[in-house]
Amino acid sequence: MSFNRLEQQLTFIIEIDKLKQVFRQSLITDSSRRENDAEHSWHLAITAALLIEYGPPGTDLLRVIKMVLIHDLVEIDAGDTYCYDATAALTQKAREIQAADRIFAMLPADQAKEFRQLWNEFEGRDTPESRFAAALDRVQPVLLNYHTQGKSWSEHNISRTQVIERNKHIEAGAPLLWQYIRQLIDDATARGWLRDE
Amino acid sequence: MSFNRLEQQLTFIIEIDKLKQVFRQSLITDSSRRENDAEHSWHLAITAALLIEYGPPGTDLLRVIKMVLIHDLVEIDAGDTYCYDATAALTQKAREIQAADRIFAMLPADQAKEFRQLWNEFEGRDTPESRFAAALDRVQPVLLNYHTQGKSWSEHNISRTQVIERNKHIEAGAPLLWQYIRQLIDDATARGWLRDE
Repeated sequence: MSFNRLEQQLTFIIEIDKLKQVFRQSLITDSSRRENDAEHSWHLAITAALLIEYGPPGTDLLRVIKMVLIHDLVEIDAGDTYCYDATAALTQKAREIQAADRIFAMLPADQAKEFRQLWNEFEGRDTPESRFAAALDRVQPVLLNYHTQGKSWSEHNISRTQVIERNKHIEAGAPLLWQYIRQLIDDATARGWLRDE
Repeated sequence: MSFNRLEQQLTFIIEIDKLKQVFRQSLITDSSRRENDAEHSWHLAITAALLIEYGPPGTDLLRVIKMVLIHDLVEIDAGDTYCYDATAALTQKAREIQAADRIFAMLPADQAKEFRQLWNEFEGRDTPESRFAAALDRVQPVLLNYHTQGKSWSEHNISRTQVIERNKHIEAGAPLLWQYIRQLIDDATARGWLRDE
């Protein structure tokens, strides 16, 4: 019996274990260390299941969950680009496309195509599923920042205006969540965790 | 406008961040450290999406993914019980039920009920979805062990017979995966990573 297809799938499954070593700027809630991309993706997937009621009507939850599970895989090669780092942002897209070309192509053709399309859709943010997924991808770091007294914001001297600018697309995917997050941002500013301009 | 329901959901979402600090015996593939439950759950969820074709016909993928995303949440209170620790296993069920009672009840009633049912189903292993999810939960650690030269097995002096006994229920959820894993176990034994009796 041949296990060719299965072995190709398992090689990919072992390859993506590397996401556990890609660290983000956000701290986990006990502030003991930075969060990695694998944990972040798990957190987003559960958050999607719990908060789907705030997404656009008719949003396909399975599609959203698949998207958030794979959205950061490109960072295995491209690394995490801090969302307030304007210089790194200039090369981010090119680095990530190159990574997507390599990583998804490890899968059998049908699954490579599905995962690449999901990633493209996530990046494009022009479907209900990708808008909602992208909203969650902004909501979760704001929550972690808020619950660690804005440590990661303070370290980088981030302002209220920058956080609003960076996160305002939450509104397109989950308007009510954006209302709530706006309150958290104002509260964080009042507490001195975000620089007020 | 009231955010009561949302705030209850977000309190749960922040609470489960603690899963990122529950460490397992498995090493991640670069052998640098142990894997935590959040990373493990993320890995299982992607693995479910990729290997669903080996599950029982008609298995509901969304249900499987939700199950693997939440299956270890009880370990926030109960801790990780090493699967070859017979003493800890004696109290495991009671500790985990107490944890489930506390953790899932933090959610709004409808979602508390859904998550608790999913967890009960996972533990019960008598539906196609839970059998497949439980199979993946055994396949992934064997893969990690194999790809780290069986370090975690060697540390605990685990035998081939123990691994087969512990993992044989993979067959009920994914027969072909069990065939493949049997080969990996034999190969690991031949390489001296598992004690042969």
